Amino acid sequence: MKKISLLAIGNELLNGKVDDLNTKSLSSFTKEYNFELLHSLFCKDNADDIIKSVNYLLNISDHLIVSGGLGPTKDDITKQTLSKILGSPKEQLKNHNGTCLGEVFKFQDKYIIAVPGVPHEFSMMLEKEVFSFLKIEKKNDNQVVFKTHGMNEAKIFEELEPDLWNKLEEFGQVSCLPVIRGVNIGVNLNDPSKKVELVDFLLGTKLKSLIWQIGNKSLEEYIIHKLQELNLTISTAESCTGGLVASMLTDVAGSSSVFMGSVVSYSNEVKINSLGVLKETLDTYGAVSTEVATQMADGVRKNLATDIGISTTGIAGPGGGSEHKPVGTVCIGVSFKGKTISKRLELCGDRNLLKKKFAASVLFLLVRETFSVTLQNES
Amino acid sequence: MKKISLLAIGNELLNGKVDDLNTKSLSSFTKEYNFELLHSLFCKDNADDIIKSVNYLLNISDHLIVSGGLGPTKDDITKQTLSKILGSPKEQLKNHNGTCLGEVFKFQDKYIIAVPGVPHEFSMMLEKEVFSFLKIEKKNDNQVVFKTHGMNEAKIFEELEPDLWNKLEEFGQVSCLPVIRGVNIGVNLNDPSKKVELVDFLLGTKLKSLIWQIGNKSLEEYIIHKLQELNLTISTAESCTGGLVASMLTDVAGSSSVFMGSVVSYSNEVKINSLGVLKETLDTYGAVSTEVATQMADGVRKNLATDIGISTTGIAGPGGGSEHKPVGTVCIGVSFKGKTISKRLELCGDRNLLKKKFAASVLFLLVRETFSVTLQNES
Repeated sequence: MKKISLLAIGNELLNGKVDDLNTKSLSSFTKEYNFELLHSLFCKDNADDIIKSVNYLLNISDHLIVSGGLGPTKDDITKQTLSKILGSPKEQLKNHNGTCLGEVFKFQDKYIIAVPGVPHEFSMMLEKEVFSFLKIEKKNDNQVVFKTHGMNEAKIFEELEPDLWNKLEEFGQVSCLPVIRGVNIGVNLNDPSKKVELVDFLLGTKLKSLIWQIGNKSLEEYIIHKLQELNLTISTAESCTGGLVASMLTDVAGSSSVFMGSVVSYSNEVKINSLGVLKETLDTYGAVSTEVATQMADGVRKNLATDIGISTTGIAGPGGGSEHKPVGTVCIGVSFKGKTISKRLELCGDRNLLKKKFAASVLFLLVRETFSVTLQNES
Repeated sequence: MKKISLLAIGNELLNGKVDDLNTKSLSSFTKEYNFELLHSLFCKDNADDIIKSVNYLLNISDHLIVSGGLGPTKDDITKQTLSKILGSPKEQLKNHNGTCLGEVFKFQDKYIIAVPGVPHEFSMMLEKEVFSFLKIEKKNDNQVVFKTHGMNEAKIFEELEPDLWNKLEEFGQVSCLPVIRGVNIGVNLNDPSKKVELVDFLLGTKLKSLIWQIGNKSLEEYIIHKLQELNLTISTAESCTGGLVASMLTDVAGSSSVFMGSVVSYSNEVKINSLGVLKETLDTYGAVSTEVATQMADGVRKNLATDIGISTTGIAGPGGGSEHKPVGTVCIGVSFKGKTISKRLELCGDRNLLKKKFAASVLFLLVRETFSVTLQNES
């Protein structure tokens, strides 16, 4: 398998101005295409740094992809710097999403391919031009992923099932990835025909109660596809998540067949007028209460005429916390088939992380309450 | 200024399972703290790769921060690998957000500090422990940022003002960062007292009409702070953005004082029932039309009783496009002071990028229509 490294060039990547999206993009392609991403190295728009980085990476990789610094402004020096050490480009690659072309350099039998750093141009060029140029083909994947919710990595492997890791390793290489409010455990099977055996083994351990998906869909994809399968529609009533739950669900292509809409009720007036929350409930229990979460989930389900309504109301901070309801408190609700379940949680993190944790919490509650019986069918 | 590099360890960073958030986090600290982030290098949980990477980075950096691979599972080998080449850790650093401690190694006069890779633990440890340990202090920043909207980088510097870059360089180091639907131009002043002169110069060029902010706030922060200053409330009516605009606005701490709520109306029924869009308008012009955008913006402003209402209705794809309304078509509206402005745009990208472009478009329309007169005051 070819070892590819990425050299991402740009001051903005190292001075806090921009998130690198290209490492994720290139690394995602390793799931589909037959190559290994050995390293990703970020480097400033500085000729000396670029030259050192190219030398280092080229020495340990089969090919090198260089992103960024191909633009028209004076700080863009990638092409001339590469030309200085590698000679002129041997050919150019098409850019379907922009004006900058890709530039192909060669050193011995290794290719160095410079492509634009703009994320949607970068990923399009890889898929349409770079992989076929490097003769990198699509692959068959033998990984099985078990997604769990409700317990952290240390607890799972040290307390719940101390021998689990060793037993999983008998099937293949094991990896473990903590994500927001869950842990994803992957096993790369040595023998692809052992998939059913692996699933049966895991469903026989204490991990069973934590597994919500055997597969590699995101939480929101999983939910949208399940709702489509079950022919159920959904709406959301959001206070503290501010529209994030709706935005996550609508990130999934085709979500419009099951997601009808959302009421983001940041103010109490909107909770009362658009969701039918009772003023007395707000006065008695406060906006952050399981009682209000229940009425919000019920209200949005009725008002938007959907099968399911889900709700969040909480305190994302930094202000607004109190002794009994500190920042991180959230009440979530799921209303379905005439029954509404609500729950109060206390989570920790900054505003941004809390919004994500709140959103994941209500989506996990939905999965548990609505889809739990279907787990067996997925294996 | 000390040169720091980051070595981010973890298979998941290179096989598409997770976004690295720590490079952005560490690089953001360069705005506030007095150090340069020289490189960020991603490396798998593999002892040979880790050793080579440490050697390479240590050779060109003053200190090294190593993230990831400190967990309890067998694939976490950072600590023992570093110990093998650097000897045992000299001391440990506290972790305020988790259980794994930081480990401090030393090589000659250089420190190698291993910290957990979990993003909120990583950033908290840097701020509370690592910088003070390395005696890195806070700094004064002399950068002025001009944020523009409506023209790409190449057009600005090649057609609109071909001599601009050279003239800006007389003030200091210039950088240029394309972002969604805009370009941010930064100048690091050689002489901090020349700030007013620089601003006056730029406002005398053709760039003036494109500048929407002189400063470094995000679009959503800028809007929330402006609304607070002007004592105006806002609500959003979102179809194609699916709650993203509301979620962006509520990412800003303190947004609850001006943001009241949102109606995400994915289905036509919700547009009619919750926003008062007329069925005839939907039938005559279709859901993606400036007429519907106008009624959505008006409707949410009235129903949620806010000063301003903004709206989006469009086709994010991949399905749903037609000859006259291809994927990427969006109609946006801003309703304020009895006047509603709407606009139709055709943008390109995949579903995820289009949602972001649609959201940015309506927020820029809001800035242009509501705040344009206040530009001079910010310099």
